[in-house]
Order: sequence, then structure tokens, then C-alpha cells
Amino acid sequence: MRRLPKCRSRLGGIMVKVKGYDCWFQGREARGEGVSAPDKITACLENVVCAETGLVALNAAAELKAVLSLCFGIVQRGTGGKKTLLGTIDQLNAEEGLSLPAQPREGFLLRSTPNAVIVAGADEAGLLYGVYALIRLLALKRFTIGTEISDAPVSRLRVINHWDNLDGSVERGYAGQSLFFNNDQVDFDAERMKDYARLLASVGVNRLCINNVNVRGAAKKLISAEFLPHVAALANIFRPFGIRIMMSINFGSPYADIGTADPLDEKVSAWWRDRAALVYAAVPDLAGFVVKADSEYEPGPFQYGRNHADGANMLARAIAPYGGELVWRCFVYNCTQDWRDASVDRARAAFDTFKPLDGLFDSNVVLQIKHGPYDFQVREPLSPLFGALEHTRYMMELQVTQEYTGHQKDLCFLPFMWEQVLQFDTGYGDTTGTKHSVGALLSAGRVDGLAGVGNTGLDANWTGHTLAQANLYGYGRLAWNPAFSAKEIAREWSLLTFPDTSVAEIAAELLLASYPAYEKYNAPFGICFMVERDHHYGPSVEGYEFSKWGTYHRADHTAIGIDRTPSGTGFTSQYAPKTAALFADISTCPEELLLFFHRVPYTYTMKNGKTLLQNIYDTHFEGYEEAARIVKTWKSLEDRLPPEFFESVEARMEMQLENARQWRDVINTYFFRHTGVPDEKGRKIYP
Amino acid sequence: MRRLPKCRSRLGGIMVKVKGYDCWFQGREARGEGVSAPDKITACLENVVCAETGLVALNAAAELKAVLSLCFGIVQRGTGGKKTLLGTIDQLNAEEGLSLPAQPREGFLLRSTPNAVIVAGADEAGLLYGVYALIRLLALKRFTIGTEISDAPVSRLRVINHWDNLDGSVERGYAGQSLFFNNDQVDFDAERMKDYARLLASVGVNRLCINNVNVRGAAKKLISAEFLPHVAALANIFRPFGIRIMMSINFGSPYADIGTADPLDEKVSAWWRDRAALVYAAVPDLAGFVVKADSEYEPGPFQYGRNHADGANMLARAIAPYGGELVWRCFVYNCTQDWRDASVDRARAAFDTFKPLDGLFDSNVVLQIKHGPYDFQVREPLSPLFGALEHTRYMMELQVTQEYTGHQKDLCFLPFMWEQVLQFDTGYGDTTGTKHSVGALLSAGRVDGLAGVGNTGLDANWTGHTLAQANLYGYGRLAWNPAFSAKEIAREWSLLTFPDTSVAEIAAELLLASYPAYEKYNAPFGICFMVERDHHYGPSVEGYEFSKWGTYHRADHTAIGIDRTPSGTGFTSQYAPKTAALFADISTCPEELLLFFHRVPYTYTMKNGKTLLQNIYDTHFEGYEEAARIVKTWKSLEDRLPPEFFESVEARMEMQLENARQWRDVINTYFFRHTGVPDEKGRKIYP
Repeated sequence: MRRLPKCRSRLGGIMVKVKGYDCWFQGREARGEGVSAPDKITACLENVVCAETGLVALNAAAELKAVLSLCFGIVQRGTGGKKTLLGTIDQLNAEEGLSLPAQPREGFLLRSTPNAVIVAGADEAGLLYGVYALIRLLALKRFTIGTEISDAPVSRLRVINHWDNLDGSVERGYAGQSLFFNNDQVDFDAERMKDYARLLASVGVNRLCINNVNVRGAAKKLISAEFLPHVAALANIFRPFGIRIMMSINFGSPYADIGTADPLDEKVSAWWRDRAALVYAAVPDLAGFVVKADSEYEPGPFQYGRNHADGANMLARAIAPYGGELVWRCFVYNCTQDWRDASVDRARAAFDTFKPLDGLFDSNVVLQIKHGPYDFQVREPLSPLFGALEHTRYMMELQVTQEYTGHQKDLCFLPFMWEQVLQFDTGYGDTTGTKHSVGALLSAGRVDGLAGVGNTGLDANWTGHTLAQANLYGYGRLAWNPAFSAKEIAREWSLLTFPDTSVAEIAAELLLASYPAYEKYNAPFGICFMVERDHHYGPSVEGYEFSKWGTYHRADHTAIGIDRTPSGTGFTSQYAPKTAALFADISTCPEELLLFFHRVPYTYTMKNGKTLLQNIYDTHFEGYEEAARIVKTWKSLEDRLPPEFFESVEARMEMQLENARQWRDVINTYFFRHTGVPDEKGRKIYP
Repeated sequence: MRRLPKCRSRLGGIMVKVKGYDCWFQGREARGEGVSAPDKITACLENVVCAETGLVALNAAAELKAVLSLCFGIVQRGTGGKKTLLGTIDQLNAEEGLSLPAQPREGFLLRSTPNAVIVAGADEAGLLYGVYALIRLLALKRFTIGTEISDAPVSRLRVINHWDNLDGSVERGYAGQSLFFNNDQVDFDAERMKDYARLLASVGVNRLCINNVNVRGAAKKLISAEFLPHVAALANIFRPFGIRIMMSINFGSPYADIGTADPLDEKVSAWWRDRAALVYAAVPDLAGFVVKADSEYEPGPFQYGRNHADGANMLARAIAPYGGELVWRCFVYNCTQDWRDASVDRARAAFDTFKPLDGLFDSNVVLQIKHGPYDFQVREPLSPLFGALEHTRYMMELQVTQEYTGHQKDLCFLPFMWEQVLQFDTGYGDTTGTKHSVGALLSAGRVDGLAGVGNTGLDANWTGHTLAQANLYGYGRLAWNPAFSAKEIAREWSLLTFPDTSVAEIAAELLLASYPAYEKYNAPFGICFMVERDHHYGPSVEGYEFSKWGTYHRADHTAIGIDRTPSGTGFTSQYAPKTAALFADISTCPEELLLFFHRVPYTYTMKNGKTLLQNIYDTHFEGYEEAARIVKTWKSLEDRLPPEFFESVEARMEMQLENARQWRDVINTYFFRHTGVPDEKGRKIYP
């Protein structure tokens, strides 16, 4: 184990701060109220004063000073008079004689007068978020004298899950090795880690699970006396940024010591209580544990004939005395399915397992439910558990890392998809016609938050594909407020990242065009999993067709898709009645999900009057063309971007174009071979 | 690097000599001439005398004594009178006043009189082979007084290629880690290595290439001063068994030192000459180098605009002064093919590359040609290079390890396939109608021998599946004499391995039934490569269909297969005219290769009057049934075999049956989905 804390750069001896590294903190001019100089707001910003002395508040002040310097070249001159005043609302009202209105938890208020900028938090975290909001508004040139803005996060839990392994690899990671681990040790660069904390906090992330949900090998020892000092060192870096650490644990861990992990065995409870005491002695504000149980060969309560409430509650009780929360994943399904048995439908699994347990979970258990019933496919319906759980706390899991969406080689702006996921009407709720989406449930406090599988690693630009930073940014913004639109987020991120506004506008357009293009050249109409097995990059139409993973499309020479209506597997009936009806009726089922819910003949006429087959051809030709346009547009920016930034993105876009071509041709050829029906427009389909 | 020689057991401290370990050297009674006791031949065998004092001859005598004791419990009593006399023919004729007839290189003569057994070799190696022949005949109960037998190997080169990596892994190995390497070191158990040498020598193997043809990482250092003493230690163990070591080298090795590997650059030649001097100083009888160049991303002469004769000759000249031979593999093809381009046919590659170079290779270059044009598939035609090369030395490469034939989980007796490969008439030769097969070319000395990719590893039974020992045995026997039939080999191996004759007869039947069963449940009618990518176990009908590997079947809803006739890719024209005509005419093309050479509609009527589609169904149902019968028959032997032997094979047979079921159902479903045509017998095909 290495010395604490570690501060070693992994990039050839120096930490290379390229444009990519700085992400949305890019150098620019401050232009609060136009070009008048000396700028009145700038004068305030040159004198940051913090009234509050808590850890997070002091860091907020330090961050403001540092980022003002980094982004705008505004340095502290300490002159009296004009100032930027930081503090909590209560404190500023009491000590400065202000009468700022109260704000919700983690909320803030920004106010600008000719002589003062005020950043006031409902609490210290709110103050920190206020600081980053101020920076964002300055960069966006939306902060002028007279501005008064208040805001607060909608979601209580805004989590990033790292699928990082102790050996330094990252499961489904496409941005280099782990930021936290190497060679079965906790091993990080303290300076870089602080920069990462800044990135996350600046978009409102307040929980960070540092290790893979598949807890194997040395990762089991993270909760041991040997490793905990190192975890504590990590927590120390994130704490001033309002971010609490979480750890994934292995449900079966007690087995090695006491020969059982039965959640109803008192020896097991005692084992976990002892372990919790050890963990919380080292990291008193640990947010909790994350558990993947009975899932893809991981151990779980089923092994002992117990249900998932038994398993989760036992663990939750071990950490309850410390204020810990137990996050329990709902990604539970039979991964040794026989493809021959068409009566089993993996899509049903999470609901079948967890709906009957609704109300049986302790109050500090939070279920973590993937947004769709499968596994982060390019297009899935919302999981039927959302809205259906009435007496259980839960949050939604999104995948920021691009496992099925192009490995951060392909540009794929995920907030475009997430917006639809968050806005989709579950069909539950009152009779007033109010939309009962996950976004609305988040706003109502009924859903606890979002968990996003992280997309960062040791790559100098954090995310491999520099434009994939927009997915991390957008994830944070949506966790903050699910009412944000993909369009707003794309514009905001682009304007923050590209100081050249005209470049930013183009970049935003590319982002917004990217998901529709990717979906079009990918698997058609929600069919899912036509992807290379294991690594999940590139098309393999029958890659999962005869596997044990339960994801089949059963295409033959006449039709494709699974009938999930009541006449088929009955999956649609897991939804609220009106949503169930929507999906079960082929005439009302959203066409982008047609093949997820229905078995459809190729000759079926879709709403545009063309056959399903012709629509498959059309979307795949179009998807490639759209990808080609994205690449062409990017190339047009060559002279307006730093060469290394331009070229690294260009290189990935070349890969994307080849990938899109392969998807287009493989999918089209597959269906042409099955049907013998040519494209009606005579475009090339390889025989 | 460890101390030399190493003698450490890897099996928990002791070398477990189970029945599996002893292979075809099993304990039994000697019964030369019936049950009369004291047996006259036994009396001779109790007094082994060796007239010759060379290294191999002395080892032959030691081997005879050791194996007589191991197999028959016959110990040396040293009494006079009756004796077993060993020596070379010249020596015995001169010193013992005999007049034994001369024998070919490595040949021997066995003679039994009432008072003496004579084992006479044309040379020391012949003597050694005579000793093993004597042991075999004794075990088979075919050695009686009056016996006089002479024999000699048909092939000059009888090679085993190990695809062992220095890290201890074995590429396409299914029998545990490497016998030679571990942790980037030469690391072997000297006692076990001697046992391995015995196994190989007993079936006539006389060359052993110790490392993978893909020479990467530490393997490049095998020819360095650091590693050569350890290679020499290995060679010292094999030398008394008449086996000369070979090493695979990396064509690009000089690059690291001198910035080029151009075979026409004198610096490169000098680099290799220096290296050869170093190597031969350590291992003076090294048989030579093996090279995989310009193949699957390995470096080669194409990188420098040179041809393969340039590359091979340069290396051959470096080792010629030491009597070394340069083995150059012909497995050269475009492995970044675009599936869209149907004009490229990988099957053509070896012929297209090497036929134009015929006659340009030095006399100590031996081309090594895989038996088929693809890559060790279950059913391929003979490579068209065989017979076509007129002025070049070459040998045939077979794969003893079961890469595409069941990973030594499935029973698949490969001599059944090899017999057909070796007996197939190339169509070349004189006009007398004499069959011009590779077997005949070997007998005529026109082909230099066989190279077999080994199937052994550190598993206690050497080959993972104990019955897979029969493939190693059979390979050696066919290299010795390609006229042996699979049936003879199966019976011989079984009788040697199972002292219980009735068990042996059943085992031989299982072996002979295994390849036809495997072929039937595998890819149909020579179509090839309907296999899981990368690991090559289990069906994946479109696994290679859109890949870069050049192996496509292009199945659609009406037809399947590649037209390789002159109206298609023209591959058939690479064969001798009469063979080309045979393959190109669908009515004469052997049906087991129908889909290799022709694109055929599913409705095509085959010779049995049924459609191609129905024949696909039939073979797959039958293949599974045959596999089930094999398993059932094996289970019937439970009471007649040692439990650990029985159970280890039984466990693998259970895997085979599941594999056969998956093949049957996936293949049948695939074609049913494409055609909608049910099985005419109404058997279950999953929709």
C-alpha cells in the first residue's frame, strides 16, 4: 500500500492540462455587464469574502477564487468596498443584516448589486452550488447587475457509480484506467482527484460510489482495516466538495469468515454490524453501500431461500446507526436462460422480483432501478417499476459510460435519450391528467434521485472522446433538475466548453444530432441487443440470439420481435393500465418501441405508409448519412479549434463513421437476406 | 531464471501417475506365446543386452528395461543364455555374426528365436523405434517366437508444434498450462519431460517445436544468451529419444536492434547469422526455426516489398551451415477483409501466394501447409498446394489440439479425418491412374512429413480429455505411415490403453463413431466457420459472417454457400484439372464438401433424394443422437474402469452432449427461420 495521500501524475510526469482536461472550465473573458471597463461585477469578484467557516463553505470560497482565476483571469486584489459575499442564508441575514429568503436543502440564492455579489446557500452545499452557478452564469454571460436567481436540486441523491476494479481496469470503461485504483491498491493522484471533485460538484453530484458493483478479488477488502485508511483519504478529498463516498460490497463476503451469508442468520448480521463499525470509524460520513445481489452470478439472498427485502434490510440495519443508506440494485434476472423456452421473458424480471416486496424495505433502503427493463440499450421503454412501487424508496440508474452507445468512439449525446426517459408518463398518479413521469416523481420527492454509471478515467480529457464530457455534464444537470431539456443542456455545455460562441452553436447541433443518428444506424425500432457479444461494440444481429442472456429477437423470414402483450409474455401488463394499453395496442405503441413490444411482419405498414422492412432500410441509410454529416461538420471546425482537440475528436469520428457503415450494411443485409426484398429506392444493399 | 534442470512437480507436490498419465503404457501381463510359463520370450526379455554405446541406443536399452518393468512387470535378472540383443544392423552383423538385411533410415528389424529377441536398427533412432515396436507388439500380444518384422518411417519429418507461450498459456490448448514455460521463463519438470519424450518417441515423433508460432513478448528472447541455456537443457532431455528441438522465431526481431527486418538488407542477414551462431553454440543439433510471417498481423517480408522466398531463404541461409532447416508456414491470407467484397476468396490465398514461388526456395526450406485452404475446420477440402508444388520441399500441418473440433471436451477422433485427408487423390501425377495422394507423396519422399499442433499440457492425463490421447497417438502413427487406417489406429490405441480387451473394443468403436457424429452436429456439408468467434467452441451461425476474417457463407432465405467454381471465385481452378473438374461440377462434388464449393438452394436434391434443407435437419438430429449413443455406451463401462478415469471422461461427455444439443437446435432453428420449411419427420425444431 502506498503512502497517503498520493500525488503522482500518470501522464509522463506532469499533469497535462489540455483543453480537454479543463472540460467546461475553459479560459475566457468575464463579461458580466458588457464591455465597460473596469467592469463593476469584475471589481466585486476581485474581493471574495466568505462569512462561513465550515469545511465546504471555505472550499466554496477557495473554489470561487481559483476558478475565477482559471476561467477569467480574475485575481483577488483584496480592495475594500466592492465585494463578493459568500455565506449561508441564515448567517448572512444575521451577520450582514440581509433578509434573504429561505431556500430548500442544498439550494442557493445569487444576487448582484452594483457594489456586491451575494452567493448565499441554504446550507454549505447550497453555497458551493451557488458558487458554481455564478461561474456558469458568468461564462454564459448571463450574470449582470440586478440578477437575482435562486435554485435548488430536485433530486436528493445525485450519484455517480464507478465500475472501477481494484486492478485498475474499468468495467465498460472507455476513458483509460481507473482514477482510484491500480494493481490491487487504492492509488490516486490527489491533485487530479481534486480536479475530478470540482467537475462533479460543479454539476451537482453529491454521491460517488468508487468501486464496481461486481465486487471481486481485492475489492472485497475495501471494507477492511487494510484498505479503509486509503478510502478515507479519498473521502477527505471529496468531502469539501459536498460529495460523500459510497462503496459497493459483496453480499457473500461473510461466507469466507463464517461459512454463510444468510441474511436471516444472526451471525451474518453481526458480521456486517462489526464491519459497518469498522468502516464508519474510518469514514464517518460514508453515504452507504451499493449492492448487486443475485445478479449475473453475484451472490445474493436467493442462495439462502430469502427474498431481496431480507437481504437489503439486514445490510441497511448494519449501517443505519451511522446514517448510512443501503442502495440495492434491481438488475436481477435469470442469466442462464434457455433460448428455446419462449415463455420466459427477461424484461419481466425486475418487476416480478421487486413489486411483490413493495413496502417491505427499511426506510434507509433505496432501490436502484435501471431505466429500462433490459440493460442500457439504445432504445428501451421505461422500466415498469417506476411509479409502480408505492411504499418503497428508489432511484433511477442511467449509464453515462457508453457501453451500448458507441464506447466513446461514437458521438452519442445521452441527455437526448434521458430527457425522453425522464418525461415519459408512467400512467400512474391522480386523475387530473397530470403527467406522472419519473421527472415529476423526482420533483415531488417521490423518487430519491439518479445514479449514473460514470464515464471517466485516466485519459487526459477524462472521457476518451472529449465531446463525451457533455454526457457527464448533462447527467449532473438532469439529476439537478430533470426538467432541463437536452437542447438546453447541449447549448449550455457547448457554450461553457467552447469560448468561441459560433463553434459552440455548431457543437451543440452535433450533440443534438448524434443520438438520433446513432439510434438509426443501430438496432431497429427498439429490438435491442443486435450487438457484438461481450464487448458490445458493433453489430452482431444474432449475437445474443442463442445465448443464455435472455435477449432474443427471433427474426425469421417473415417477422421479427417478441410479443410482449397479454397474448404473448404479458410484459405490457406490468405497466399502469393506460400505459399497458398504449404499449399493447400496436396502433398506439410508439413506433420507436414497436419491436420491443410486438412481433411484427416485415410487410407491416407503419405510420409513414411504408413497410417495416422499408423503414429498417431507410433508418439505416439515414443513420449513416447523419453520422457522415456530423463528421463533415466537425471537420469544418478544424481552423477554429486547438489542433489536439480537433484531431482527437476527428480520429474518433472516423471510427464512428466506419462503425455506422458496418451497422448500416450488416443490418440491411441481414434483413435483405431474410426477405429478398430490395430497397425501394435502389440503394446498395450487399447480398 | 531458475536452476537447471528443474524437477518440480506441479501437481500438489507429487507427480500423480494415474492411468491417464501412463497413456498407452499401461500395466499388463506379457503373453508372447500364450500362457505357458516360464514364457520363453519373457526369459529373453529378462536379459536385455545392448551392443551399441551411442546416446540414443543406450537410452533405447534403458527404455526397454524401464517399460518392460512398467508395463509387464518384467525385471532384468541378468541370467545368461536367453537374451534380448539390441544394436544397429551393421554392428550386430559384424560383432554377432548375424546377417540382418539392411533397413531404411530410422528403420528397424525385430526377430524372435527361442533363445533370443533381436532388435536391430538401421541407425540408433531405428533401434529406439524397434524397442517401442517390440513393446507395442508385446502389449498387443502379437509377438511370438518366429516373429520377424521390419519397418521404417515413411515421413522424414514427424513434428509436433507446441503453441505454448512463455507466460505458460497455450494458444488453443485444452489440457492445462504449458509443459515448457511459465511466468516468462523456461520452466519444466525434468521427470515429466522425460515421460513426454517417451510418449512422443514411442509413436515416432522426431521433431518438437517448443514455442508458439505467434512469437511475442518474452518468446522473442528464446534465441538470446539469457534463455538458450534453458532451451539446451530441454534439448538434452529430448535428444536421447531421437527428438530434435525446433524454435519458432519472429521475422521482425532484428527491427528492435537495427531498425529493419528487410530480408534483402545485408544488415538483417548478418543479424540472423550472428543469432544462428549463438543458437547453434547452445543447441548444436537444433532442427531449425519455424516462421509464421505476414500472417494474422505477424511481421513478414511483405512489409518490405519482398516475397516469401526472399524471407525464407535469408533465414535458411543463416542456419544452413549448422544443418538447420527453415520451416515456413503458408498460412498467409488477408485478415482484414471486407465482407462486402465477394470477389475476394480467402480459400485462394495460400496457393496465390506460394505457387508462383515454386522453385525459388533454398534446399533447406520446408514449407508447412495446413491440410485445408481455411484453418483446421471440421471438414475442408485438401489445400490445392499439395501436389501443385513441384520444385519446393513442403510438409502438411495437421491440428492435433481440438480447436474447432470440440476443445477436448467433445470426443472427436481426428485420425478418422486425417485418413481421408491423406488418401485424397490430388489429381496430379502420372497417367497410369496411380493415386497421387499426400500419403503417396509422403511414401515417395516427395513430401517431407507432417507437423501436428500438439494437444498436451500440464493436465495429469496430458490431454484434458483422456481419450484425446488417441489423437496424439494416431498423429504419430500416421506420420510414421500414412497408409494406416483410422480403424487400425483406433483399435491399436484402445488395446494398448485398456488392458481389458472387451473395453478396448468398445472404446475403439466410440472413437470411430466420434468424428462422424461431431461433423453431423457441426456446420453442414463443408460450410465451415459457423462457430463462436475467438474461442471457437459452440455454434454461432453468423459468428464470422460480417467479420474481417474472410470466411463467409452468405446464407439467405433461398440458398447458402460460396460459388468457388470458375463462374464464382475460381478457387476450384487451383486444383489439378481432374480434381478441379470433380469439385466444380455439383453432380460430382463430394457431398460432404457441397457447400464449400457451391452456392446451393435449400431445395436442391441431394443424392439421397432429399433436399439440402432436409439433409441439414437430418444430419443435425442424427449427430445429436450419435453423440447420445456414445455417452450412453461410455456410461455402460462404469464398472470396468477405474473410477477417476471413467468419471473424468463421463463429465466431458456430458458437456459434449449439451454442446451437440446446442449445435443441433441452433443450426436447425437458423435454417427453419430462413425457410419456414418444417422437418419432414416432424421432429422438434424450435421456432
